Amino acid sequence: MKRVINFNAGPAAIPLEVLEQAQSELLDWKGTGMSVMEVSHRSKEYEEMHNHAIAQFKELAGMGEDWKILFLTGGASTQFLMLPMNMLGEGKGADYLVTGHWSKAAVKEAKRFGPLNLTSVEGEGGSFTRIPKQAELKLDPKAAYVHMTSNNTIFGSQWQYWPEVGKVPLVCDMSSDVFSRPFPADKFSMLYAGAQKNLGPSGVTVVAIKDSFLAQAKEDLPTMMSYKIHAENNSLYNTPPCFSIYILDLTLAWIKKMGGLKAMEKINDEKAKILYDAIDASGGFFKGPVEKESRSKMNVVFRLPSLELEEAFVKDAKAAGIIGVKGHRSTGGIRFSIYNANLVENVKKSVDFMKEFQKKNG
Amino acid sequence: MKRVINFNAGPAAIPLEVLEQAQSELLDWKGTGMSVMEVSHRSKEYEEMHNHAIAQFKELAGMGEDWKILFLTGGASTQFLMLPMNMLGEGKGADYLVTGHWSKAAVKEAKRFGPLNLTSVEGEGGSFTRIPKQAELKLDPKAAYVHMTSNNTIFGSQWQYWPEVGKVPLVCDMSSDVFSRPFPADKFSMLYAGAQKNLGPSGVTVVAIKDSFLAQAKEDLPTMMSYKIHAENNSLYNTPPCFSIYILDLTLAWIKKMGGLKAMEKINDEKAKILYDAIDASGGFFKGPVEKESRSKMNVVFRLPSLELEEAFVKDAKAAGIIGVKGHRSTGGIRFSIYNANLVENVKKSVDFMKEFQKKNG
Repeated sequence: MKRVINFNAGPAAIPLEVLEQAQSELLDWKGTGMSVMEVSHRSKEYEEMHNHAIAQFKELAGMGEDWKILFLTGGASTQFLMLPMNMLGEGKGADYLVTGHWSKAAVKEAKRFGPLNLTSVEGEGGSFTRIPKQAELKLDPKAAYVHMTSNNTIFGSQWQYWPEVGKVPLVCDMSSDVFSRPFPADKFSMLYAGAQKNLGPSGVTVVAIKDSFLAQAKEDLPTMMSYKIHAENNSLYNTPPCFSIYILDLTLAWIKKMGGLKAMEKINDEKAKILYDAIDASGGFFKGPVEKESRSKMNVVFRLPSLELEEAFVKDAKAAGIIGVKGHRSTGGIRFSIYNANLVENVKKSVDFMKEFQKKNG
Repeated sequence: MKRVINFNAGPAAIPLEVLEQAQSELLDWKGTGMSVMEVSHRSKEYEEMHNHAIAQFKELAGMGEDWKILFLTGGASTQFLMLPMNMLGEGKGADYLVTGHWSKAAVKEAKRFGPLNLTSVEGEGGSFTRIPKQAELKLDPKAAYVHMTSNNTIFGSQWQYWPEVGKVPLVCDMSSDVFSRPFPADKFSMLYAGAQKNLGPSGVTVVAIKDSFLAQAKEDLPTMMSYKIHAENNSLYNTPPCFSIYILDLTLAWIKKMGGLKAMEKINDEKAKILYDAIDASGGFFKGPVEKESRSKMNVVFRLPSLELEEAFVKDAKAAGIIGVKGHRSTGGIRFSIYNANLVENVKKSVDFMKEFQKKNG
């Protein structure tokens, strides 16, 4: 069996222990004589696992009884739609903090449903290289919510502070850095995350929503678009994406075993430091476009002196067993996505490769 | 390793060969050094598999170049919403043929979007025991489409003919009998199916749509609700449910290897005959509520003389290694879901069990 160092941006690396457990019980899960894929979503065994995943999520996030955890589908892109559909309406608008590609995509869907008030840090040519400062945020105290994207997968920037938004509910798309560090759950009214970066495989989106915010959701909506219906049915109104939820549950158990969010933050800080130090010490051979205080600890993006060198870098990395380092097609460049499942060792090996590459080509 | 006889209604049995292949390559897929769950949906390897699944689906269904195959999420329940959202509007209505629980659920969502014209065979107390005859269908030649549900999972009835609907596009929810028998693709403009019965695990919904019908879809819709956007992006607008699509691809390969839809029909006919013969020969101990010509070959439902006997039947079956035979909570009774992955041998063993049970308790 071959295993590579996997810096894919999502779907992304999954802890080896999680995959090994899934493999070992793929034909006979929990002694049921069935694969977890073959078990009814109304069975005792399935519901136990489903509720275990919810309980683990709440425990890791430090969320109390006043939170509902939903397992939905359609990725964060579907939340871009469901959130305003549930919460906005005539004269009921929202604030959007626009820090990258996915924030913009969220705005595109939301503006169908109500007036939006934007704080954007978009630069020339559609680039994003920083997170706005607190003083820059244009906030409307009457907004139904404030929407932010905690980490920008494509541009490689990340909020390194949590904004103050007064009494307005704060909603966060945490798709690409959820559970990579502790966060003050009390500051938020909702967060959501596609699982395929830090939490498992694609196919499930976690939506965590506070009861007080859920109470604001509209009643008369198409069934599958209604937060209230999904919450009332514990995400079992219809058949959920059972296998993805199962891998999510195993991944949450792995995070717990690693020591929880504080321990993950320590590891992620160390990984990011090793990479950014290597970039900063390269004498300009590797160059990060993002302002230092806004750098992402999940997606480390940088450029090389030429497109040819960037191509050679990707090719040589692959030959060295390091894959997924090509930047997003909209930005080009190099990107290392160092989500939770990539441990320090992988990053150290990659920095050795970077130094070697610079020595040969610098 | 223990394996049971699995008559779950969905999620349901998956061919053992499919599970064994998935297990063998779960840590290193196609020599990538990654699990299929860890591979980018923009990678050559993933796209090859994705397109292979599409090609296999088209080949098995006998669909030509004028069809698009989409891999969406949210189950058939989300199609109940997307279909009318894309196709209906002011003064633009549809015909719905209502034959069971899920048809009714489809009506509930569709009536938000345009006027509906219903043909329903609902009986007393909300029961459904038959499929309407051609002469009973109330069809509007100006309808945007006619919607039918080919098999009724809960009530155990199934269309045993394909209705004539003139020039109006025919749309079919085939969730619970897709690829269990051949069907004339030319008669349809769209069909959809949650995968978790005949095609694989939950988490992916296949939507097959003819170009001429797709052209009728609205343009200005929320992104994730738009058939056109999903079709233009080959279901890769955002991250698809990769693992579910992978198991779908393996399951389609298994159906091909079994001999395709004609071969599946032969096996499914034999299985249904064995079960219904046993019911009909039981002297009324086992009693099927569905009219003979409307009986489902996928979900065989029947009653026993008392609730106590039904409970004992489920319990004894489980002890005999036969699981998933409890009827839907809304109807009670017994249900054997004999989808493709349940071969003749499993049904024969179950009929032996039924006879034994009757001998003891009859």
